[in-house]
Amino acid sequence: MKIKTKQNHFFGALKARTEAKGGITLEDDFTGETKFHYKDFGSIDWYRELAVDQRKRAREKEKAENSPNIVNYVRSLADAASGWIIVTVIGLLAGFAAGVIDIATKWLSDLKSGYCRGHLYLNQEQCCWSDNLHGIDEDNCTAWRDYGNPNSYGGHVLLFIMYCLMGTLFATIAVILVKMIAPYACGSGIPEVKTILSGFIMKGYLGFGTLLVKTLTMPLAVSAGLMLGKEGPLVHVACCCGHAVSQFFPKYRNNQAKLREMLSASAAAGVSVAFGAPIGGVLFSLEEVSYYFPLKTLWRSFFCALIAAFSLRAMNPFGNQHLVLFYVEYDKPYHLFELFPFIILGILGGLYGILFIHMNLSWCRFRKRSLLGQHPLLEVVILALGTSILAYPNPYTRIQSGHLIRLLFKECKRYDDNPLCDYDYSKNATTVFSDGITQASWQLILALIVKSALTVITFGIKVPAGLFIPSMVTGAITGRLIGIMTQKIIEAFPSSPIWEGVCADPTSCIEPGLYSMVGAAAALGGVTRMTVSLVVIMFEVTGGLQYIVPFMVATMASKWIGDAFGKDGIYDGHITLNEYPYLDVKIDMQQQKVRSIANNWTLTSIPFQGSTTEKLCTMLADHPYSGFPIVTTQGRLVAFITREDLHEGIAAGRMLISDDPNDEFIDQTVLFTMSTPLVSAGRVPIRLNNVIDYSPVTISEQTPIALVLEMFRKLGCRQVFVIRQGELVGLITKKDLLQFIYETRNNDQTSYSQFK
Amino acid sequence: MKIKTKQNHFFGALKARTEAKGGITLEDDFTGETKFHYKDFGSIDWYRELAVDQRKRAREKEKAENSPNIVNYVRSLADAASGWIIVTVIGLLAGFAAGVIDIATKWLSDLKSGYCRGHLYLNQEQCCWSDNLHGIDEDNCTAWRDYGNPNSYGGHVLLFIMYCLMGTLFATIAVILVKMIAPYACGSGIPEVKTILSGFIMKGYLGFGTLLVKTLTMPLAVSAGLMLGKEGPLVHVACCCGHAVSQFFPKYRNNQAKLREMLSASAAAGVSVAFGAPIGGVLFSLEEVSYYFPLKTLWRSFFCALIAAFSLRAMNPFGNQHLVLFYVEYDKPYHLFELFPFIILGILGGLYGILFIHMNLSWCRFRKRSLLGQHPLLEVVILALGTSILAYPNPYTRIQSGHLIRLLFKECKRYDDNPLCDYDYSKNATTVFSDGITQASWQLILALIVKSALTVITFGIKVPAGLFIPSMVTGAITGRLIGIMTQKIIEAFPSSPIWEGVCADPTSCIEPGLYSMVGAAAALGGVTRMTVSLVVIMFEVTGGLQYIVPFMVATMASKWIGDAFGKDGIYDGHITLNEYPYLDVKIDMQQQKVRSIANNWTLTSIPFQGSTTEKLCTMLADHPYSGFPIVTTQGRLVAFITREDLHEGIAAGRMLISDDPNDEFIDQTVLFTMSTPLVSAGRVPIRLNNVIDYSPVTISEQTPIALVLEMFRKLGCRQVFVIRQGELVGLITKKDLLQFIYETRNNDQTSYSQFK
Repeated sequence: MKIKTKQNHFFGALKARTEAKGGITLEDDFTGETKFHYKDFGSIDWYRELAVDQRKRAREKEKAENSPNIVNYVRSLADAASGWIIVTVIGLLAGFAAGVIDIATKWLSDLKSGYCRGHLYLNQEQCCWSDNLHGIDEDNCTAWRDYGNPNSYGGHVLLFIMYCLMGTLFATIAVILVKMIAPYACGSGIPEVKTILSGFIMKGYLGFGTLLVKTLTMPLAVSAGLMLGKEGPLVHVACCCGHAVSQFFPKYRNNQAKLREMLSASAAAGVSVAFGAPIGGVLFSLEEVSYYFPLKTLWRSFFCALIAAFSLRAMNPFGNQHLVLFYVEYDKPYHLFELFPFIILGILGGLYGILFIHMNLSWCRFRKRSLLGQHPLLEVVILALGTSILAYPNPYTRIQSGHLIRLLFKECKRYDDNPLCDYDYSKNATTVFSDGITQASWQLILALIVKSALTVITFGIKVPAGLFIPSMVTGAITGRLIGIMTQKIIEAFPSSPIWEGVCADPTSCIEPGLYSMVGAAAALGGVTRMTVSLVVIMFEVTGGLQYIVPFMVATMASKWIGDAFGKDGIYDGHITLNEYPYLDVKIDMQQQKVRSIANNWTLTSIPFQGSTTEKLCTMLADHPYSGFPIVTTQGRLVAFITREDLHEGIAAGRMLISDDPNDEFIDQTVLFTMSTPLVSAGRVPIRLNNVIDYSPVTISEQTPIALVLEMFRKLGCRQVFVIRQGELVGLITKKDLLQFIYETRNNDQTSYSQFK
Repeated sequence: MKIKTKQNHFFGALKARTEAKGGITLEDDFTGETKFHYKDFGSIDWYRELAVDQRKRAREKEKAENSPNIVNYVRSLADAASGWIIVTVIGLLAGFAAGVIDIATKWLSDLKSGYCRGHLYLNQEQCCWSDNLHGIDEDNCTAWRDYGNPNSYGGHVLLFIMYCLMGTLFATIAVILVKMIAPYACGSGIPEVKTILSGFIMKGYLGFGTLLVKTLTMPLAVSAGLMLGKEGPLVHVACCCGHAVSQFFPKYRNNQAKLREMLSASAAAGVSVAFGAPIGGVLFSLEEVSYYFPLKTLWRSFFCALIAAFSLRAMNPFGNQHLVLFYVEYDKPYHLFELFPFIILGILGGLYGILFIHMNLSWCRFRKRSLLGQHPLLEVVILALGTSILAYPNPYTRIQSGHLIRLLFKECKRYDDNPLCDYDYSKNATTVFSDGITQASWQLILALIVKSALTVITFGIKVPAGLFIPSMVTGAITGRLIGIMTQKIIEAFPSSPIWEGVCADPTSCIEPGLYSMVGAAAALGGVTRMTVSLVVIMFEVTGGLQYIVPFMVATMASKWIGDAFGKDGIYDGHITLNEYPYLDVKIDMQQQKVRSIANNWTLTSIPFQGSTTEKLCTMLADHPYSGFPIVTTQGRLVAFITREDLHEGIAAGRMLISDDPNDEFIDQTVLFTMSTPLVSAGRVPIRLNNVIDYSPVTISEQTPIALVLEMFRKLGCRQVFVIRQGELVGLITKKDLLQFIYETRNNDQTSYSQFK
């Protein structure tokens, strides 16, 4: 974090503060590599920020007690309620944004196959609704015009061309919008939100422009047919809403720690509207993205998630009363022997996760190095065209991923026109399977290959792109296939003792839709390494409270396989890839001591006695550090002062004796205690004892890194001072620690053996 | 914590360790006041315990890497799996215990009205089942003999007498068992489990005897008809199971921090089996009882809770396939205007909570002071007899609380024989309400008064007693009454614009059963101040996933009212009442500095150089402290050593040069560094640099208490050292801090103004 220290800015304390808080320098050449460096991130001091807030509250309480009138009472009430007001508004906004995205996506997707005559702004359903007042009858709808007649060869070709053209057009608009207005709107945003919530500042990442562009481009990207989902980015959108709303309340705007409480709640709201899963959203926020999650935040997150879900339901974008995304109607019990295929699905999901993460990260690294990275627009256009061409021929790749998942989760009813349900129910048939199912299975296998391959190269392009739905699709296809396979096996060995007692015939015995759900959970678990939140999201998404055990078995198998043979989940992988400063909770550094972090140990400190404004100003001008320790002549640490407090303290002191704040040549004694000075400098001395911190956190040189990590994580400090037998010898900042961890990771073997 | 320091025990390091770890001295006069003092609690050092575990793992990993053979591989695998094995076994045991309790309760409850001829060990249902092989037909069951004929006057009197006698007998047996074998088995156990999980040691509280007695006496206490539930105590029972299972694994037995991870999982399993609510259980453990809850524990808790739920279902104590305790079949949507009565229910629940907590705590204080406290047996007998006599006449107090709740939650069907559903459905009737409902309502009001009053004086007696079900009953009755009242209002103003559009007639419009559920949630929320976990438990218990919003609205209103006008929840109230050492998360002590805790600041320290075994032994004998700082001659802190490590270190050093460990007169130099000593004492010096802690946590004298609290809570240290400009001036232990907090609380006004 760099602060301008030119003399003419010296008294621009307010400006300095803003920069000290913001402070990320992004090399904004969008076509090149958008790269953050550690030094570009501002880090926040949780403890200090929370302490500031507590002190403020205590002062206001005191004030209210001293003069108990109605204004003060209302003010304190408003202050107490502001958190609830914010989460309510965040919920409403997040639900609204999700609703807009859903409606726009539906309209744009329909626009790829046809248009509404006279009412271009209507989607197919609404168009037919307005045409035929007796109800929806899409087959018999004259207002909706397809681009071509699907029954004629020429019409089919026309449809195909329009499908590809529209898809490419949408993707192009999306990437241009992102490039021109808000480069941060690309990607899923979850790794960045994680980083921000862990206590770093990425200025502009949650800005209003990002919110607007991401909301607008997400429908474009999804309806372009690209292999990406809109669920992950909704977390980012909700956090942008949270950030925007918090700006109206000074209590949250000026306090980075309080702001993050609201962002945690926003993340919960994001998942809540993405899946219609409020409890899953809260657990997602707790398990996956949040860092500091006190109970108060839990409760507010829950409220926020619920408001968001209801705000979305009030908009009713799906046109039904179900809040649930992939509602399944069956509640057939599963059999004990089915746990075996569920475990296999879990293992497959875990392996898929490892493979996907590895390939995606490799592709992203390749993109950074190659020409591809310099031409993101071209990349997106080619990808969109390629995806359209590959996807159109196969019905299972042509339809939207969400619809495909719904189709795969469904149970089979008699005389269903779904080819996956084309069982032969005639009593005389020796086999219940028909050619229809075999053909559909082959199409599914093709879809699986195409979709997984495209997802690998899609996640990371410069449009909003989520991973939840693509991962679930892969898993759901695998699950359905395994389900059909299990049915085949049961058909082949109908009298096996394993299922003889419980199965009358293969179709009534097991439900391939359940396998599909379980597979989706397993694949998503393998990619993201979520656990409890995933199980909860899955049963909230499907309404299948009775299938907790299958979900759980698969998720556990997937997680174990993933942890045993792979490294991090995809989000942590991208955090590492982008070198974001994130203190990983899993890092295990028991063996090493603070001594090992030996850089930066020539400290610029302020003497406890004998400081003058002139000396301090020179020091401020010479050194860019964001704070300075105050030490005695014996080198013992007394206190700590931040750069901005020193700035402001001196400025305020000068104001008392001179009207000209730029009159820098008045030299005054600066005192850091409350006691009277021994030497009087003639002028009134400046006292800084109110703004300095007499209790900096200190550690001994021999402290294990693990404990330091705990202190940074749990106390949320920005720096700790290193003491050797009472004497100040050094200073470790969060960034020093991160730097050290990355270095250790990169030359893992050598450094470990070195300090063993 | 006192350690025996007699000379003849000096080398009994193992013994000393056990006592240092255990160490609560309970004044075990059961008839008097069972009172713990701060000094009786051992406190644990989370950070150190976890660091020990990590070091051990690192050593084992290294060993396995150095000699990669199959034995080491299996060992490391077993070590990694041991946590999962433990939670599995805990889950199975907790489910089993819950099943035993449920079955025994059912049998004993039936035994109050009759017995099975020839098969005394069968309950009514089983008895009739064995009698009539074609199915259960309780009316037509000859094997089951009531004590009297309910249709004759004499038979009725006989039934009443037997009801009272059996109830009193059960309660007497329960209290005698508790008194004789396991005094810790009384009460709900949740306040104590909270205290234990917060890092204190209460020896024997989770012992096997407690487990056994609590499991056996709970059915007795519940079927005695006392106003108590078996759901809360199941948390204690599950934690006892967890403690017992962990004893078989050295990794968890010898490590208090790891043990607590398992106990957190056990608490989740307890709630899971109590309500059939695995997710609610995990959230309860997270929100209400746990202190240190890393993500790994979340996942294991979930697994444990699920295994427990399935283990219970496998025992099938309720005789149906539903895991859900109070399954409701309806999923009628609620109307928006109903949120108003739901909020009123929430407010009533909050007020009930405040009133209940206040009265219960007053009664407990009265019990302690009065003769009542000295005769717990008599108290229980009188209470059981009184409860029986008061409860029998009213059908709503006579039946078990669980059945009553199920009855109140139910919807009304046509021609229901439930008097609460005695609506007049004839089309000509001007009113749908009948006298049956009015009469039932009056009976409910009476039941409400009797039950709430009895609950106040019951919670705290010396038998296992939970609060969940009694609180829910109170709320459910209130809810049902408000529901009926709302129906009456709708009937009186059928054409009000508020509900005219949505209500055809009052019975079809709103569902009093839903009001009952909402009321139960509100009352339970008011008493326990639970939030998210309560909502989740409520929808898991009822299967009403679609009623999240009503539950939530009521819980929030209840919580807000409770927090605004009351103090703590009932569990925190009892923690304060019993003066358990619990670091409350809500304590706000921004204004005060470490300076204020000025006691205990004459430190017994070890000089860094020039220590000999003789001096150290004398010091150990003279001072009972559990650890000593090592300081330089300038008074600067170098390191810290625990009493037991000093013991063992000296003993081990002596073993090297003398075969007689009691040969105390060999004086050796003790070194605390790795460097070679300047003076050689002739003998081989003892080096303690491997066992001492070079990185004790230090704070400055000016540190706010709030930060110290954070350090104790989040880093889990047992003590911190106080430094004034590099020099060691004091030591604050967890107990010092607690003592200070309690003192501050007791003379709140004075101390706050003093340090302002």
